[in-house]
Amino acid sequence: MAKAPVLTPRADDFPRWYQDVVSKAELADNGPVRGTMVIRPYGYGLWERMQQEMDARIKRTGAQNAYFPLFIPQSYLTREAEHVEGFAPELAVVTHGGGKELEEPVVVRPTSETIVNEYFSKWVQSYRDLPLLINQWANVVRWELRPRLFLRTSEFLWQEGHTAHATYEDARDFAARIHRDVYGAFMRDFLAMDFVLGRKTAKERFAGAVNTLTLEGMMGDGKALQLGTSHELGQNFARAFHTQYLSKDGTQELVWQTSWGSTTRLVGALVMMHGDDDGLCVPPRLAPVQVVVLAVKDDEAVLAKVREVGERLTAAGVRVQVDDRTDTPFGRRAVDWELKGVPVRVEIGPRDVAGGTAMLVRRIAGGKRPVALDALAALLPAVLEEDQELLLARARERRESRTSEVTGVDEAVEAAAAGGWARLPWAALGPDGEARLAEHGVTVRCLVTEDGAVPDADETPGNVALVARAY
Amino acid sequence: MAKAPVLTPRADDFPRWYQDVVSKAELADNGPVRGTMVIRPYGYGLWERMQQEMDARIKRTGAQNAYFPLFIPQSYLTREAEHVEGFAPELAVVTHGGGKELEEPVVVRPTSETIVNEYFSKWVQSYRDLPLLINQWANVVRWELRPRLFLRTSEFLWQEGHTAHATYEDARDFAARIHRDVYGAFMRDFLAMDFVLGRKTAKERFAGAVNTLTLEGMMGDGKALQLGTSHELGQNFARAFHTQYLSKDGTQELVWQTSWGSTTRLVGALVMMHGDDDGLCVPPRLAPVQVVVLAVKDDEAVLAKVREVGERLTAAGVRVQVDDRTDTPFGRRAVDWELKGVPVRVEIGPRDVAGGTAMLVRRIAGGKRPVALDALAALLPAVLEEDQELLLARARERRESRTSEVTGVDEAVEAAAAGGWARLPWAALGPDGEARLAEHGVTVRCLVTEDGAVPDADETPGNVALVARAY
Repeated sequence: MAKAPVLTPRADDFPRWYQDVVSKAELADNGPVRGTMVIRPYGYGLWERMQQEMDARIKRTGAQNAYFPLFIPQSYLTREAEHVEGFAPELAVVTHGGGKELEEPVVVRPTSETIVNEYFSKWVQSYRDLPLLINQWANVVRWELRPRLFLRTSEFLWQEGHTAHATYEDARDFAARIHRDVYGAFMRDFLAMDFVLGRKTAKERFAGAVNTLTLEGMMGDGKALQLGTSHELGQNFARAFHTQYLSKDGTQELVWQTSWGSTTRLVGALVMMHGDDDGLCVPPRLAPVQVVVLAVKDDEAVLAKVREVGERLTAAGVRVQVDDRTDTPFGRRAVDWELKGVPVRVEIGPRDVAGGTAMLVRRIAGGKRPVALDALAALLPAVLEEDQELLLARARERRESRTSEVTGVDEAVEAAAAGGWARLPWAALGPDGEARLAEHGVTVRCLVTEDGAVPDADETPGNVALVARAY
Repeated sequence: MAKAPVLTPRADDFPRWYQDVVSKAELADNGPVRGTMVIRPYGYGLWERMQQEMDARIKRTGAQNAYFPLFIPQSYLTREAEHVEGFAPELAVVTHGGGKELEEPVVVRPTSETIVNEYFSKWVQSYRDLPLLINQWANVVRWELRPRLFLRTSEFLWQEGHTAHATYEDARDFAARIHRDVYGAFMRDFLAMDFVLGRKTAKERFAGAVNTLTLEGMMGDGKALQLGTSHELGQNFARAFHTQYLSKDGTQELVWQTSWGSTTRLVGALVMMHGDDDGLCVPPRLAPVQVVVLAVKDDEAVLAKVREVGERLTAAGVRVQVDDRTDTPFGRRAVDWELKGVPVRVEIGPRDVAGGTAMLVRRIAGGKRPVALDALAALLPAVLEEDQELLLARARERRESRTSEVTGVDEAVEAAAAGGWARLPWAALGPDGEARLAEHGVTVRCLVTEDGAVPDADETPGNVALVARAY
């Protein structure tokens, strides 16, 4: 099959390639209001599968889902000084409701720490009510001047977790657990993503947090993307909202809190981490469609066979789609499934029906070969598992090969400009070096310890800064 | 166990009883902005289970989920005249974003027909693209002057389906399929709800629809509540947004459309249809917790036993919660589970452990009796199934016994005032009679045919109007 040159090659213009994939794989369209997006069924299907898996993992920590209002009184945001300073420039404000001007304008939530604390302060009375572990799936709005579909949109979908604990240690451990055992495990094992787990510098921290843990992934062009964050909030919001509990000793104590979020940005990350010049590559565990069974020709025996194979594979536990739309040329459909990154195509034509075979085409490992139809169901699990591992290995290999050790700011800027990450001692860089990097559009993505663990503090001796350009 | 008088009795003040249940069963709290609500974990757990089941049923029709933006340009709404007239008084308007006044104010979606059509008109090109079947789970905002938790809130959660079809017949049949086979079957079989399937009069139709199908349920006080609606939109939005397709014959044709929605109001309906003076009664198929296993006393053998029983029942496929919070008095916990409507309590104290028994307490059928612990897992499925059927039978019996046949407006008003529904020939009532009913706060909930089916038109001979006060 000759491939139509449907996408801008990555090497020519990576941002344009990204836009092409998002549009041609029918993931999303720009919305009519600046920075908003329409998530199309195929893109939403990816997000739905992410949600399901993430939700199950979040619930295993003991957290329960709830729902807080979209509208927050403006006065709530101002109660935590750093928080309002961080979010004020990005707010959307509702001034009219029900045909009247409102007495107090309300903001559309950019995140929910403030409104959550208003209720936590009512729900938490005694040490018996702790830990309080809440998660919410919702839309949030942060006005975006340079929007990019999935990566930076004025409205996005996410989950935001909010917890309250009796002690500093309990909160710290929970934030770390979400970071490593929920986000980390989910992204690695389900999304086949490679990343570095680290700690944000003071400059890059969430507005209102005392510590922000991050997962940083390397995209196909060597830039970094923040994949998710987990924050220790200390007692900042507890103080502002009087969220306190009666201890076993009978004293009133402020709670210790965490918050953590992951967003539809992960769909963009998926494109940019696993995609190639032919389009998206979807890890099989995530894939809404793992295998597409295509009728090559409008032929009764072929149509009957693709449906039969589709049913057989579905019964074997594979997520299958049958493509019998023979009023669209076969080549166009094949390119479309390639664009959409479906891991395996099973193509069946009249000769295949006669011979009891099909053509097995692998999107991720590459290559095509004829297989006996009877062998297919037994073959696929190993094929899909191999693809899953291959994507992770490729992403890891890219990051490792494109990360260099440097000693100073100039070298770091050079490495970032060349499309890579640089590592250097945080003691040598420090906040001053960080400010100089920023002049070149380069940021400290995170700090890690010498042996690659997450540091307890910015100033832990031996901390290494990972610096890069970022989305 | 002596029951504390935690709730206002229904007979004293039904609306207050409702508020008590919502608050004391920890379903929801009022939000800080007028008309908004915080859905607490137990309430959200009910909604989540509804979502899962409804989502699966919607997907079986072939519809796919997608996501459209929260913000809609004001100009979109004005394109369909009836639509904007219907929704203008309820809009929330964003005038500022990112620190600046917006050039064109945007509205927070009250529903998504307009923005959906803007994209349908791009996605639909040919007859091959039809039918296009889309569903979205989202929040919407309709400014509410007399809010009531779950029933009427300024922000609510819902699913809204939007479809486009090549022919009038196909659209009509799809709207009917959602009405009866998706909403009807879901509410009856999963929520144990009783309702009447009917057709709205012109006065009660959705703004922009040519036909609105409804499900009307009778609440505990005899009032009606609209449980869900499915609309035929005709070509109204297609005309306004130029949503057209190239037919097989090569002509450009406008599509025929439907939209349909069901909301978090269903949680309120659940309370008001199945609740009693002791609180909520949750149908077992819906229940996030079907069985709670309670430790009566802080005793090691008891605690070990409740955990063991919990694990055994979980393994048997029952949704179980173990309540071993012995630092809270047993009586208070028992009342709390009763309030929350968990169908079955298994109470275990020291004597039970010794005797290998437990006390089985049934929330829905009533009564308590000792059972052998070994018999529990085998016993529960039948108990839960019986409870499920009992709730449906009770709701049906209430509606039937409180519905009367009347002949004119005065009698109908009287029946409604007495807390019931009235049936009378639509030919005798008509739009004039409907207007007179409205003066007394009574509405035509829907029209049905003589034999209880859904009429094809308002003026089908023999149509019966079902009238009532409504939430």
